[in-house]
Amino acid sequence: MKPELGVCYYPEHWPEAMWAEDAARMVETGISWVRIGEFAWSRMEPAPGDLQLDWLDRAIETLGAAGLRVVLGTPTATPPRWMLEKHPDMLAVDAQGKTRKFGSRRHYCFSHPGYVQESVRIARIMGERYGRNPHIAAWQIDNEYGCHDTTVSYGLAALHAFRLWLKDQYGSIDALNEAWGNIFWAMECRDFDQIDLPNLTVTEPNPAHVLAFRRFSSDQVVAYNKAQADVLRALTDAPLLHNYMGRVLDFDHFKVGEDLDIATWDSYPIGFLSDRLEADETHKTAFLQQGDPDMQAFHHDLYRAVGRGRWWVMEQQPGPVNWAPYNPAPLPGMVKLWSLEAVAHGAEVVSYFRWRQAPFAQEQMHAGLLTPNNRPAPALTEAKQTSDALSEIGNVVQTQAQVAILFDYASDWAWSTQPQGAGFDYFRLVFSAYRALRRAGLSVDFVSSTNIPRVGYKFILAPGIATVSDNLERQLVEASDLLILGPRSGAITHDFQIPRARPGLSGLNCDVDLVETLPPNIRRSVEGGGAAQHWIDRVSGAASNLLTFADGTPALLGENRLWYLAGFPDDKLWDRVVEMAARKTEVTLYPMLKGLRRRETATHVFLINYNAQPVAWNGDVVDACDVAVTQKDAPEEE
Amino acid sequence: MKPELGVCYYPEHWPEAMWAEDAARMVETGISWVRIGEFAWSRMEPAPGDLQLDWLDRAIETLGAAGLRVVLGTPTATPPRWMLEKHPDMLAVDAQGKTRKFGSRRHYCFSHPGYVQESVRIARIMGERYGRNPHIAAWQIDNEYGCHDTTVSYGLAALHAFRLWLKDQYGSIDALNEAWGNIFWAMECRDFDQIDLPNLTVTEPNPAHVLAFRRFSSDQVVAYNKAQADVLRALTDAPLLHNYMGRVLDFDHFKVGEDLDIATWDSYPIGFLSDRLEADETHKTAFLQQGDPDMQAFHHDLYRAVGRGRWWVMEQQPGPVNWAPYNPAPLPGMVKLWSLEAVAHGAEVVSYFRWRQAPFAQEQMHAGLLTPNNRPAPALTEAKQTSDALSEIGNVVQTQAQVAILFDYASDWAWSTQPQGAGFDYFRLVFSAYRALRRAGLSVDFVSSTNIPRVGYKFILAPGIATVSDNLERQLVEASDLLILGPRSGAITHDFQIPRARPGLSGLNCDVDLVETLPPNIRRSVEGGGAAQHWIDRVSGAASNLLTFADGTPALLGENRLWYLAGFPDDKLWDRVVEMAARKTEVTLYPMLKGLRRRETATHVFLINYNAQPVAWNGDVVDACDVAVTQKDAPEEE
Amino acid sequence: MKPELGVCYYPEHWPEAMWAEDAARMVETGISWVRIGEFAWSRMEPAPGDLQLDWLDRAIETLGAAGLRVVLGTPTATPPRWMLEKHPDMLAVDAQGKTRKFGSRRHYCFSHPGYVQESVRIARIMGERYGRNPHIAAWQIDNEYGCHDTTVSYGLAALHAFRLWLKDQYGSIDALNEAWGNIFWAMECRDFDQIDLPNLTVTEPNPAHVLAFRRFSSDQVVAYNKAQADVLRALTDAPLLHNYMGRVLDFDHFKVGEDLDIATWDSYPIGFLSDRLEADETHKTAFLQQGDPDMQAFHHDLYRAVGRGRWWVMEQQPGPVNWAPYNPAPLPGMVKLWSLEAVAHGAEVVSYFRWRQAPFAQEQMHAGLLTPNNRPAPALTEAKQTSDALSEIGNVVQTQAQVAILFDYASDWAWSTQPQGAGFDYFRLVFSAYRALRRAGLSVDFVSSTNIPRVGYKFILAPGIATVSDNLERQLVEASDLLILGPRSGAITHDFQIPRARPGLSGLNCDVDLVETLPPNIRRSVEGGGAAQHWIDRVSGAASNLLTFADGTPALLGENRLWYLAGFPDDKLWDRVVEMAARKTEVTLYPMLKGLRRRETATHVFLINYNAQPVAWNGDVVDACDVAVTQKDAPEEE
Ligand SMILES: [Zn+2]
Ligand SMILES: [Zn+2]
Ligand SMILES: [Zn+2]
Repeated sequence: MKPELGVCYYPEHWPEAMWAEDAARMVETGISWVRIGEFAWSRMEPAPGDLQLDWLDRAIETLGAAGLRVVLGTPTATPPRWMLEKHPDMLAVDAQGKTRKFGSRRHYCFSHPGYVQESVRIARIMGERYGRNPHIAAWQIDNEYGCHDTTVSYGLAALHAFRLWLKDQYGSIDALNEAWGNIFWAMECRDFDQIDLPNLTVTEPNPAHVLAFRRFSSDQVVAYNKAQADVLRALTDAPLLHNYMGRVLDFDHFKVGEDLDIATWDSYPIGFLSDRLEADETHKTAFLQQGDPDMQAFHHDLYRAVGRGRWWVMEQQPGPVNWAPYNPAPLPGMVKLWSLEAVAHGAEVVSYFRWRQAPFAQEQMHAGLLTPNNRPAPALTEAKQTSDALSEIGNVVQTQAQVAILFDYASDWAWSTQPQGAGFDYFRLVFSAYRALRRAGLSVDFVSSTNIPRVGYKFILAPGIATVSDNLERQLVEASDLLILGPRSGAITHDFQIPRARPGLSGLNCDVDLVETLPPNIRRSVEGGGAAQHWIDRVSGAASNLLTFADGTPALLGENRLWYLAGFPDDKLWDRVVEMAARKTEVTLYPMLKGLRRRETATHVFLINYNAQPVAWNGDVVDACDVAVTQKDAPEEE
Repeated sequence: MKPELGVCYYPEHWPEAMWAEDAARMVETGISWVRIGEFAWSRMEPAPGDLQLDWLDRAIETLGAAGLRVVLGTPTATPPRWMLEKHPDMLAVDAQGKTRKFGSRRHYCFSHPGYVQESVRIARIMGERYGRNPHIAAWQIDNEYGCHDTTVSYGLAALHAFRLWLKDQYGSIDALNEAWGNIFWAMECRDFDQIDLPNLTVTEPNPAHVLAFRRFSSDQVVAYNKAQADVLRALTDAPLLHNYMGRVLDFDHFKVGEDLDIATWDSYPIGFLSDRLEADETHKTAFLQQGDPDMQAFHHDLYRAVGRGRWWVMEQQPGPVNWAPYNPAPLPGMVKLWSLEAVAHGAEVVSYFRWRQAPFAQEQMHAGLLTPNNRPAPALTEAKQTSDALSEIGNVVQTQAQVAILFDYASDWAWSTQPQGAGFDYFRLVFSAYRALRRAGLSVDFVSSTNIPRVGYKFILAPGIATVSDNLERQLVEASDLLILGPRSGAITHDFQIPRARPGLSGLNCDVDLVETLPPNIRRSVEGGGAAQHWIDRVSGAASNLLTFADGTPALLGENRLWYLAGFPDDKLWDRVVEMAARKTEVTLYPMLKGLRRRETATHVFLINYNAQPVAWNGDVVDACDVAVTQKDAPEEE
Repeated sequence: MKPELGVCYYPEHWPEAMWAEDAARMVETGISWVRIGEFAWSRMEPAPGDLQLDWLDRAIETLGAAGLRVVLGTPTATPPRWMLEKHPDMLAVDAQGKTRKFGSRRHYCFSHPGYVQESVRIARIMGERYGRNPHIAAWQIDNEYGCHDTTVSYGLAALHAFRLWLKDQYGSIDALNEAWGNIFWAMECRDFDQIDLPNLTVTEPNPAHVLAFRRFSSDQVVAYNKAQADVLRALTDAPLLHNYMGRVLDFDHFKVGEDLDIATWDSYPIGFLSDRLEADETHKTAFLQQGDPDMQAFHHDLYRAVGRGRWWVMEQQPGPVNWAPYNPAPLPGMVKLWSLEAVAHGAEVVSYFRWRQAPFAQEQMHAGLLTPNNRPAPALTEAKQTSDALSEIGNVVQTQAQVAILFDYASDWAWSTQPQGAGFDYFRLVFSAYRALRRAGLSVDFVSSTNIPRVGYKFILAPGIATVSDNLERQLVEASDLLILGPRSGAITHDFQIPRARPGLSGLNCDVDLVETLPPNIRRSVEGGGAAQHWIDRVSGAASNLLTFADGTPALLGENRLWYLAGFPDDKLWDRVVEMAARKTEVTLYPMLKGLRRRETATHVFLINYNAQPVAWNGDVVDACDVAVTQKDAPEEE
C-alpha cells in the first residue's frame, strides 16, 4: 500500500472564487485527499427543512475535478441554532447539573431521541445526494466523539435512557441491587425509576453505579454512530470512518470501530505534550517543539487495532495550535517526521488540519498549511517534502508485531471511578508499559479483549485489566508464549465487586492479599534494580518468585506461561521485566537512545529521531527531527 | 477498669449461615463488643411502615449467644430510598446551591422536621423492641455526624429553621441589626424573614451572620441527636453514644456529648496523615505507615473530655482504607500500638472497623480483620495480640493531668469565617500547642468553656479562644496556677464584634493594638530563640515583657498568673513557653525523642514508639512500632 | 496647586455625640476633606420612599462647621434590602449561572432598568437637597465599579440589554454573523433573539462573541454612571468623581472618566502586593510591608490620564487591611511615603480609608487612623507628618512627561478572552514596560487611544494594543518621535478577526508570520542580552533588524520612527529597548537602584525609597521608607 496525503478544508469559509486555486495548490503539494463538510450544517440547512446543497455540489465538483478524492463529513457535531428551538432539551448537562449551552460545538446529548433522529435524517439526505458521487471516496461520521468531555451527560435524556438500559442489563431491580451491593449504606431501590444518575451525591456514589453509567454512556456513543453508519451503508460503497482523539478513553473505540471501515485520529503532538502528558519538566522542555516520542506512536498502534488494520491520521498538527496551555511552533522537520512516523505505523493517509488558517472564530490561532492571508506557512513545504519522501519509500507493508498490549477502555472507567490512590491512572500505566517496549526497540500491537488474534505473540502485557474472565485468560494464553498481568489485573468483577479470588487465574497460583497505594515520592525498591510506585499488590502463592521487593515480598510471580507483576513499575523495573520476557520468549531487543525510536514493518525499518540533535545508533546517523528509512531485503507485497 | 476490644459487623451483608461462625471467631480473637445495625434501614423497613426485624432479632441472638455484647445503631445516617418520596425536600443543599442527592449516605438536612420525626420514629421502634434485650449493652445514635461536610445545609429547611432560631436569639430584628453591625454596607433588615442564608453573596457576608449560622447549624445537630436520645432514654438503661470523627469541628461535640453517656470516635491514623494533617513531606514520609504520633492522642484526650471521662474508639483502622488520597498499609505492630495507645489515654473499648472487608460498594477497598473471601487479614493477628496484652496490663486507671488546653468549637467557626490570614487555622494552632506539651513528655487534658473542673491544673493553655468573658477568665484562673492566652484570644465578642478592650482581661494589663498576618515564608524571631508565624498580635501594657521580638515589641506579656502570647508560635517558641510555664508552676518535663510519646495514668506509664526503628529513652528501649508499659507502684483502684 | 489630605468617614456608624470631636481631630491632623454617605442608603431611606435625611443634614453641618469640605457619595453600591422586594431580578448572575445574593455589597446588575431608575431617583433626591450646600465640595457617584467582579452579569437583564446593544452595533443579524465568523462551527443565528450570553458553552465560545459582550458590559457601566452624573450636573457645580480600583480592567475607565471631573482611586499597596501582583517570593518578601515600588505609581499615572490631569487617591491604606491573603502592617514611614508619592504624581487630595476602624461587620479588621476604641493608630501620626511635609513642599506643578505608554482596556478584554498562552496577560505586559521606564528613572504618562495629546512625546510604547487602526497609527506617530509597538500589537480587528496584514502598519514593513507561546521556564535569548518569554511574534519584513534572537530571527524590527518588538521582553530586554529608544530620541536616563524611584514635576524632583534600608543615589541619601523632595530652580506657577 502506498501511503498518501490529505488535508482538511472548509469551502464554506472562503469565497467560491478561491476554491479552484486552492484545489490546484493541494494537488501541487502532493495531496490527494480532502475532507470537507463536517461543520457546515447551518449552510446545508439554514432553516429546518430548507436544504441548500448547491454550494456543496459545486465544492465537491471543483475539488474532484482537480483530481482530489473527497472525505465527506456528516455535520452532526455542530447542530445549527434552530435545532435548539425544535429540541430545547437536547443539550447535555454537566456533572454539576449545568446545561451546556449552544455557542461552540458538540452541544448535544447522545441519548436524546429527537436529535438522534435529526442526525439520521441529515445523514440520509447526504447519503442520497452524494452516496454514489464518484468524487466522494470516504465518509466521516460526526467529528471527534467525546471531545470537550461530551460522552457523558447528566440530563433527563440520559437519565431516561439509562433506566431503560439498566432494565435491559439486569432484568429486575432485585438483580441490580444484588449486583451492585446496594445493601451497603441502605441504597436499595425498589424500581428502576428510583435509580438516579450518579452525580451530586453527598459522598461518592456506589462504584458499580458509576461504572454502569460509564458503560451506558459508551454504548450511547456506539448506538449514535451506528444509526448514521446504517443509513450511509445502504447509500454508498465508500468506506465509513470517524476521527478519534488522543488520550480520550470515555467510550469504547473498539465497539464504535466495529461499525466503521477505517479508524482515523487527530494527532497534535505539541498540544498533547502541553496539555495531556504526565512528564517532568526536563522531558517536556527537551521535546517542547517536537512532542513526546511515544505519544503519537501509541495512538497509531492503538487505532490500527481499532480499525482492524485500516487507519489514517485525519488531522495532523501543522504548526502552533490554539488550544493548549502553551503553543510553541514545531521545530523544522517535525511535520514531515510526524507524517512519516504515521506511515511507518501503517497510516494509509496522513491529512493535515487545516488547509488555510481561518482568520475568525475559536480556532483563528490554529496554524494551517497556509496563513490567513494565503501565504505559505512552514508546514506547506514540509507537506511537499513528505509527499516526495513517500514516493521514494514506495509501498509500506505492515506485519504483526512480536509483542502486544491488551487495551481495555472499561478498565479506565473502572479505575477513574475508584483510583484508590491519586497516582493510579489506567492510561499512565499502559503508556508506561508501551514506552518500555519502545525503549527496547520493539514494534508493538494493541489487542482488545473482544478481538484477540489467534496467530500468536511472543508475549502480551495486560496491566490494569479490571476484569479477567476465564475465557479472556484462555484466549490470551493461547495467543502468546507468555502473558504478563498486573498490577491490578483481574481486580474486580464486571459489576465492580472484588472477585472471590484475585487475580483469579486458573494458570497461576497467586493471590492478591492486600493492596497499597503510595504518594508520588515513595517507591518500593526491587532487589536488583527498579522499583514500584503508586500501586502495590501484596501477593502470595505457589508460583515462582521471579522478582522480589526489598522487604522480601514478591514483585513478580510466575508460573507456566503466566506472570503477575505486583506493583506499578517505574521505568527501570519495566525495562527489567521486558528484558526477562524477551529472554524467555526469544525476542531480540534493540535498546534505543533517548528520543530515538524504531519501527519495523514487513518492508522497511524506520528510525525516528525526536531529538533536536542528530543521533548515531548502530552505525547509522539520523539527523535532528528526521526519519531514516531502510528498505528491507525482499519485501513482500501486500 | 479493664479495657476491652470490639468490632463493627454488618450481618445484613453476609449469608445468615456465616453469622455464628463469625461470632465464634470474634470471641476467639478476644473481642467482647460488636456494633451492628447503623446502616441497615432499608432491610429493617424495606417500604414505609413495613417493619422487617426478624433478621435483626436473630443476628442479635446469635451474637449474644456467643457471649458478645452488642452496640445497636439507629440507622438514621442512611435513610432508604422511599424516604425521598415521602420527603423530597429533606435533602441538604451545598454552599453552591446544589441539592445533595440520594446515592451514598448522610443525605438529610438536620433541620427538616419531617426527617427528624422519621428518625425519632425508627429510634422508638428499635428502643421498644430492643431496649431491654439483655444482649444490647449500648446504643449508637446515627453515625459520624458532620461526615462529608453535612453539618451545614443551605436549603429551605435550614433557612426556615434559621429564621426561627434568630428570632429566639435576638428577639427583635433591630437587636439583630445592632448586634451584627448591619448598618455597615446598608445590610439592615426589617423582618426576620428578610434574613437569608449567608452563601452566594457578591463578596463575603457579614461574619456575624456567618457565625450565627454556624452556631445555629451546630445547635441543629445537638437537637437532632437529643430527639433520638430522649426517646431511647425512656426505653433502655444501656448507655447511649455516638461515634465522632477526627478533625471535624463543625458542631459543638461538648454539647452533643451532654445528651450522651459515652463519647466514641473513629480513628484512622494513616488516612488522617494523608488527608487532614499539615506537615512537611519529611514528616509525612517518616510516619506514612504509622500515622502522626500526636494526632490520635489529641483526639483521645479531646473525646475523653467530651465523654466526661467515658470514651471509646468505635472504629479503629485495621489496614489500608479506601478514602484517603493515598492508602498504604500499616507497618507490622501498628494496629496493636494504636489500640494500646487508646487504652493508655483511657479508652474503655477499642473496636475495629470492620470484621470482614466487603467485596462490594463504596468501601470495598477498606480492609477489615478478614479479607472479603474470609481469610485472616494482618490485623486479625494484631487484635489477638492486643487482647493478650490487655490481659497482662490489667486495670488502667486514669487521673487528671497536670496541664490542660481549653478547646472551643465556636472559635473554629469564628476563625474559619474570618481567618484574616490564610495561614491561620484554629485546629492547627491548638494542635501545635498540644504537640509542644507532648514533646515535653506531658499528659494533657482538654477542658471546655462550659465544663472547667474546679480541681486545679498547674497551667492551662487557651490559644485562639475567640471570646473570653469575665466569667470564663475567672473560672480559668481559679482552675490553674497559670493561664496562658493568645494568640488571638478574646479577640471578638459573641456577636463577632471587636470588644472595647482586647483581650480585655481583668487580671492582665495588656492591649492588642494591631494585628498582622504573614505569608508562610515569613517568621518574626523572638530574642533567645523561636519565632512567631502566621499571626502577630502587637501588644502593649504594663504587664511584664517575658519574651521579646527582635524589633523590641513583646512576644509574651505576663502579670500575676496570666500570660498573653503575642503570635502564633513555631515549635521552638512553643517549647520555650512550655518550659517557662513548667518552671514557674513546678511541673516536671520529660523531653521526648522524635516519634516517641509518653502517657502517664494513675496505674501505668506508657511509652509509645511511632518510629519504624527502636528507640532508647531514659534507660528503656522501645521496639519499632511498639508500646512499653510500666506498672506504677501501688496503683490506686478506680 | 497645593495638595491636601482627606479621610473617609461613616457618621452613621457612630453615636452622633462623637461627630464634632471627630471633625475637630480631623482638622488637627491636617485633614481638609471628608468623604461620607456612600453606603448609607438603608439609613437615608429605611423603607421605600421613607426619606430620613435629617441625620445627614446634621452630619454635613457638623463636619462643615469644623472647616472640612465634604465629598458626598451616592449610596447606590449598597441598595437596601427592600430594593430586592421591588426588583427581585436586579441581582447579577455569575458565569456559572448562580444568582449573586443580597448580604454584602454591589448586588445589582448594571443592565437592570428598574435599578438604574432607582439609582437616578436617589441621586436626584440627594442632588436636590445638597447640590448647593456650601459644605459639599465634590460628589462621588457609587463606589468602586467592578469590585468583586461585578462589571459582568450573566442574568436576564444583561441578556436583554445585550441583544439591543448588538442590534444597535451590527444593524442586521447577517452583519453580525459575518463580523464574528459564525459560519465556523455552524454558529450562525437568524435573529438577535437567538444570541445568548457567552457562558456555559460546551467549549469556548466565539471570541468575537465574548469580546462584544465585554464591550457591552463596559458600556453598561459607562451608561449607569452617566445616568447619575447627568442628574447631578443639573443640581450642583461641585466636581463629580468616582473611586476606581487597582488592576481592575473590566470596564473602560477612560469612557467613564469622560462624564466625570476628577478621577480618584483606592490605593492599597500592601494588599495589592499580596493579592494581585505577579512577582517572585524574593521580591514579595523584600517589599512585604511596603508594597511594590511601581504598582502605586502606575495607577497614579494611569488615573491622571483618566481624569485628564485631575485625580485623587480617595482611599489610602493606613495599616493592615482585612481582605488580602496575608495582611501585614506597613513599615514606619510608609503611610507618609505613599501619600507623598501620590502628590509627586499629581494627586490633588490623598484621602485615608478610614477615620476609625469599625468594630463590626466585614471590614472590622481593616485599620483606620484610629482604633475601634478611639485610640490613635500609627497612621494618624503619619497623616499629621504628611500634612506638615505638604506645607513645606508647597505647590506641586505637573508637566507632560517625555515618554508615554498607550493603555487600552479593550486589549485586556481581547487577550483575556483568548490569551493563546497561559502566561500572556495584558496588565502584566504593560506593567513590565512601565517598570522598565521607571528603572531608567523616567517619569511616565499614559495616553488612551481616544485622547492622544498633540504635544509630542520623545517615545511612546504601545505593547499589546489589540487593534491598531490607520488613524490610531497616524495619531501616535504624530505625537512622538518614536513609536514602539509589539508584541501582539495590531493583532486583531475590532471584531476579533486576524487582519489581512499584521501588525498592518503603513509606516513599517513588517509582517507577523507565526505566533508562539511558551511555558514559563522557556526563554528565547536575544543576541547581546535579554530574552523574550511567554509570547513570540515571528516577524519578517524589509525593516531593519535592530535586535536578533539567537536563532537569527528578528527580535526588534525598525523603520523610520516605528519599531516592532517581536516578543514579550524580560526585564533585561526591556532595559535594552528603553536604552535604545532613549539614545535615538535623546532622552536622559537616570538608572535607579532596586526599590528607589524618581518622579520629576515642573517644580520638584522626588526620590522615593521603598527599601527598608537607606540608599545613596547620585550624591543624595534617602532614608528607609522615605521620600527626598528637591525644589527645582525657578518653578513655574500653574
Ligand atoms: Zn466531477
Ligand atoms: Zn440471647
Ligand atoms: Zn454650615
